[in-house]
Amino acid sequence: MYKETNIRSIVKGISWRVVATTTTVFIIYFFFGRLDLAIAAGLIETVLKVGLYWAHERIWQKLRWGKKKIEPFNLWFTGLPLSGKTTIADKVYEELQKLQIPLERIDSKDIRELIPDIGYTREDRNRHMKRIAHLIKTLQNNSVSTVASFVSPYRESRKAVREMVKNNIVVYLKADIETCKKRDYKGVYEKALSGKLKNFSGVNDVYEEPQHAELVIDTDKTGVDEAVQMIVTYVKKRYVK
Amino acid sequence: MYKETNIRSIVKGISWRVVATTTTVFIIYFFFGRLDLAIAAGLIETVLKVGLYWAHERIWQKLRWGKKKIEPFNLWFTGLPLSGKTTIADKVYEELQKLQIPLERIDSKDIRELIPDIGYTREDRNRHMKRIAHLIKTLQNNSVSTVASFVSPYRESRKAVREMVKNNIVVYLKADIETCKKRDYKGVYEKALSGKLKNFSGVNDVYEEPQHAELVIDTDKTGVDEAVQMIVTYVKKRYVK
Repeated sequence: MYKETNIRSIVKGISWRVVATTTTVFIIYFFFGRLDLAIAAGLIETVLKVGLYWAHERIWQKLRWGKKKIEPFNLWFTGLPLSGKTTIADKVYEELQKLQIPLERIDSKDIRELIPDIGYTREDRNRHMKRIAHLIKTLQNNSVSTVASFVSPYRESRKAVREMVKNNIVVYLKADIETCKKRDYKGVYEKALSGKLKNFSGVNDVYEEPQHAELVIDTDKTGVDEAVQMIVTYVKKRYVK
Repeated sequence: MYKETNIRSIVKGISWRVVATTTTVFIIYFFFGRLDLAIAAGLIETVLKVGLYWAHERIWQKLRWGKKKIEPFNLWFTGLPLSGKTTIADKVYEELQKLQIPLERIDSKDIRELIPDIGYTREDRNRHMKRIAHLIKTLQNNSVSTVASFVSPYRESRKAVREMVKNNIVVYLKADIETCKKRDYKGVYEKALSGKLKNFSGVNDVYEEPQHAELVIDTDKTGVDEAVQMIVTYVKKRYVK
């Protein structure tokens, strides 16, 4: 949130004065045909009104009327590990930031780095999702929109998020598991397939496909930039007017 | 966060015009002594400048310059169960809201109701505090200040909070344990003393007194309203100018 500084109000006062006095001088000249007097009147007007305009600005600063509360949304990226969630969500976040709306990026990785012992069982994940939903809801209370990316493999936890937050936009990044395995630059599929990683969505734990996603993007057929464009357009049309 | 609506800019335009044109009419009258022409010029000025002022407002809407980011703070209430944390924090929150700063209230009870299986062991509590610190930090990223109240009995978890958030103000509500036991309207001390509640701070688990609290309030000697006044004054002096 931003607050107008006094200096901003003063500079606005001066910038307006240039526009306004020029107009006044022309009006007076038009009526009386005396440019010298028109300019003299303009000068007096300038001195008086810079101060008056500043006072007028500061009074309006105190009034809340006519300020519209921004309606926050939550973009929720779900999909198999390595389906492209973080990559696409990062780019979408970058694009949406240009709109100068209050916006926060929440990624699974960052939170798991901070609190490493969250766990990966169904129970652990559901509890984790509820906490994330609480975080998003608290941000929304303060008009902050969010771009969140989590594997979030279970229907029940995605449902819990939907119930707690408003303007929820689920983006399902559909990817063939064979493609994800090939993309495996983190080596996580390999570990899961060899049994070193347990509860790994898509290998030794389920990934329950969303049935009510607002956007389904087939990442085998859609490029990253195209996907970003689709998502940004969707958000702009509905939530950023 | 708020956004200026178009109608606000229009009404501001009209309100300014009344002030400005009256001034212009007086100036022209002073120079030329012709009230009829002064009023005619004033009328033309009015029509022209309401539009110009509106355009000027909308251009400034797009400029970020001179808007000051609000510096967020975190009020952190700690103390034994029933030392008065929720009561005092609620009232402080109410008072600070009047200052029209973006502000969020976070209470232990609300979060434990939402996610009941957080646990009360040292490990559970430390993890919980780290999550709360993350929540506060994320809010602070968006200029939102916080009023948080948690028993938070361990030094290490209060330290973790201090390291993660900025402008941290620890308020230690010091209360004699005997007073807290007497106030026991929730019956929690009774349960803890009979062994039905485990890991209860002050009974069968430690409460480590803060050594670096910004404010220490002895609730045995200080009334609620006085405590609220002290805290609000502290915050206003340092963070809300």
